Amino acid sequence: MKKHILILGGLGFLGRNLVEAFMDGYIVTVFDRGKRTAPAMIKIQTGDFTRATDLESVFQKNKIDLIIHSLSTTIPSSSDPAYDVESNVVSTIRLLDLMKKYSVPKIVFLSSGGTVYGLTEGSTGVSENHPTDPISSHGIGKLTIEKYLQLYHRLHGIDFLIIRPSNPFGQYHISPTHGFINVALQKLVSKENVDIWGDGEVVRDYVYVKDCVAAIRKMVDLGVSNEIVNVGSGEGHSLNQVLAIIKEEIGEVSVNWREKRNIDVPRIFLDISKLKSLVPFDITDIRQGIRETYRWLKNQA
Amino acid sequence: MKKHILILGGLGFLGRNLVEAFMDGYIVTVFDRGKRTAPAMIKIQTGDFTRATDLESVFQKNKIDLIIHSLSTTIPSSSDPAYDVESNVVSTIRLLDLMKKYSVPKIVFLSSGGTVYGLTEGSTGVSENHPTDPISSHGIGKLTIEKYLQLYHRLHGIDFLIIRPSNPFGQYHISPTHGFINVALQKLVSKENVDIWGDGEVVRDYVYVKDCVAAIRKMVDLGVSNEIVNVGSGEGHSLNQVLAIIKEEIGEVSVNWREKRNIDVPRIFLDISKLKSLVPFDITDIRQGIRETYRWLKNQA
Repeated sequence: MKKHILILGGLGFLGRNLVEAFMDGYIVTVFDRGKRTAPAMIKIQTGDFTRATDLESVFQKNKIDLIIHSLSTTIPSSSDPAYDVESNVVSTIRLLDLMKKYSVPKIVFLSSGGTVYGLTEGSTGVSENHPTDPISSHGIGKLTIEKYLQLYHRLHGIDFLIIRPSNPFGQYHISPTHGFINVALQKLVSKENVDIWGDGEVVRDYVYVKDCVAAIRKMVDLGVSNEIVNVGSGEGHSLNQVLAIIKEEIGEVSVNWREKRNIDVPRIFLDISKLKSLVPFDITDIRQGIRETYRWLKNQA
Repeated sequence: MKKHILILGGLGFLGRNLVEAFMDGYIVTVFDRGKRTAPAMIKIQTGDFTRATDLESVFQKNKIDLIIHSLSTTIPSSSDPAYDVESNVVSTIRLLDLMKKYSVPKIVFLSSGGTVYGLTEGSTGVSENHPTDPISSHGIGKLTIEKYLQLYHRLHGIDFLIIRPSNPFGQYHISPTHGFINVALQKLVSKENVDIWGDGEVVRDYVYVKDCVAAIRKMVDLGVSNEIVNVGSGEGHSLNQVLAIIKEEIGEVSVNWREKRNIDVPRIFLDISKLKSLVPFDITDIRQGIRETYRWLKNQA
């Protein structure tokens, strides 16, 4: 019998890609605010994540085998930390309480490899054992949720899989403000300037979103549980390098240079050896990922 | 001119001791639910920590130079994590927002050396750099607050001093359920049995509360800022060892042996070399601390 997966935030960027990755072989239900369209075979439960009754109705109507939690009520540069914690952390704890109540055995949580570690040094990738000292409220919230997943596993036997994705890019990404590669490509399509805070030497680990969700699918299929796993490309690229690649592959993006923000870590890329030891992991070349993303964006325009 | 200190939770166990430690040389205002008495010269502001308006009225009426945050809305063995986070973490973030609004430059936060580290191994004390993997909601909440203090320092220049006390015991401790030495001595006074979860081999670092608040006073006087500091005795004692000492010094406490709880870490004591490098730190012998605490308890009975 097919397992029933509930994808929280399944109409968002990662969520839509997760739906595509899991549609074949699983029954998929999506819980989201429901402002966007989704594939016809997917059941959408519209609701507000911060209202426990909205969530509970999903469990009353469906026997869920696995939750994939890819829902954030706030964006990474959010400036209201109290709301961040209330809406993301407290709501996720309520979700865990519902999992206990309705005997949902496992949750996959999309944390944040780009923010939970905080400031990192040196030229090697950051492994899962690196100290976690986030310098943004977004990162603190993700880290706190990770700790509660581990607590509920310990206290109540709920299994978890914590994914720390780096910076995914690719199809279904429509935010006009965050996710540098997508924003830069959008600006190229619309012939506008892209904003860069600082000198463009900020280094990030860009992972093609299809690689990211394929890795998650493989780990779920294999039943990887109670682990924290980085999912990235394992390589760092500066914003300037990304712009140079886009220029070579497609065309030149104009830049609005803006003042550095103190919530951005200067340099991070992930050590993905744990991921590679768990499942076969194929990395799409960043140039190919950028070309495919641009093609998708052009089709949307 | 004397500096004005606001002590949150100043009528609690640590709070009352902090008030005594800071009364001489500072103007002290206490914010608490106000169910207990306090020294006459101390101004008490009664209020609910979870209501931002209650807190704000303190800042509207007083120019505060330093906050000492020793307020917990929940006890360490709390079983409602969502409420834990809402009432402790979210309320503390609102407090930080008020500090920003009313230009309060510094906060001393009483975190928890006994719970933020989680499971520890080996026979050496745990230093401030030990990984932080709490196995209780109480510990996760304290750790999350620590991260927000560091974030608000970084973003808004609010100074912090994070104290990670081990297990303090001594005067003004009146909880009938947590704080093993005090509870055991109370039971001795009232001729009742003390509850022990597990076999009594759980090891804790018991620090005499007067040593703990004296160390905090010295650090505040010296202006120690933006540091995380363990405050403990640097020694571990099992519950059984504590009972043996009480038996030798005062008399035998009878025990109700109860089933082990999975929120208790089996063994922890703190490395206090950082504290000793910052200020002179005198440790009261545990036997003397126990005798003084017993004397105080007898006078209350």
